[in-house]
Amino acid sequence: MNRNAFAAASAFAVVAVFSAAVVAQDMRPDRAIKYRQGIMQAQGWQMGVLSRMAKGEIPYNKDQAVRAATFVNELSKMSWEGFVPVSDSGNTKARPDVWKDKAKFDRLAQEMQSETPKLVAAANSGDVAQLRAAVGAVGKACNNCHDDFQKQ
Amino acid sequence: MNRNAFAAASAFAVVAVFSAAVVAQDMRPDRAIKYRQGIMQAQGWQMGVLSRMAKGEIPYNKDQAVRAATFVNELSKMSWEGFVPVSDSGNTKARPDVWKDKAKFDRLAQEMQSETPKLVAAANSGDVAQLRAAVGAVGKACNNCHDDFQKQ
Repeated sequence: MNRNAFAAASAFAVVAVFSAAVVAQDMRPDRAIKYRQGIMQAQGWQMGVLSRMAKGEIPYNKDQAVRAATFVNELSKMSWEGFVPVSDSGNTKARPDVWKDKAKFDRLAQEMQSETPKLVAAANSGDVAQLRAAVGAVGKACNNCHDDFQKQ
Repeated sequence: MNRNAFAAASAFAVVAVFSAAVVAQDMRPDRAIKYRQGIMQAQGWQMGVLSRMAKGEIPYNKDQAVRAATFVNELSKMSWEGFVPVSDSGNTKARPDVWKDKAKFDRLAQEMQSETPKLVAAANSGDVAQLRAAVGAVGKACNNCHDDFQKQ
């Protein structure tokens, strides 16, 4: 297979995989945008609870930390299917780069999702210092993606 | 204990339990409203996917059904802490009854959460008829609460 044929085949494979992944989605961009914003909003709120707890701004409560961390971990898997192609216009802060550099977007998305189980473990440890470190790591992973793919 | 003393003690117990449950929450109503709306939005979107799949409007895909049902089940536990007392004004469709008749609100919330594991089971069965029935039951449980507690 020469390089052009390989590139064409790869492009086809990417499209095929991507299509399979979204076959049963709601493809209306306005709905998908609200969906992913809803998930992001919820993640942010629960991360806010954990962040203030880690900083001592609100009382430490292990049960609530575990609950919030569990929710963040569950939510971390949900927003991605809301990035239906191509929904970079309308009421969204998503940059076109989400679809133009999908490999990088997916990598950063995966990195964030690899941090959230550690957040659950840190919450379960009952150790505020561990929680603080894990909240920082998840927050950094969120920002790594927002820096490149979210309009400021 | 006479009736008045019992009523007073019960009221105190309810307040105490409620306070404990929200001790570590973000009590700013505007943030809490956006949080719960985000969760509701996400539930609605995933339920929409399942509903259209159950009706045959989009192709049946078991993996996607399981994924959507799992998300609905996880999300079904999340919105409630966003109903911080008392956040019935501002950009919300929540009626004051959410807080005035909290016992009923909590009961309907619980009934909805008791249906969503059945939705996951139905999705895992691979049987569209089971999925259709479970989607209907969850939808009915959503509406039961919206009818009484959401402004139309």
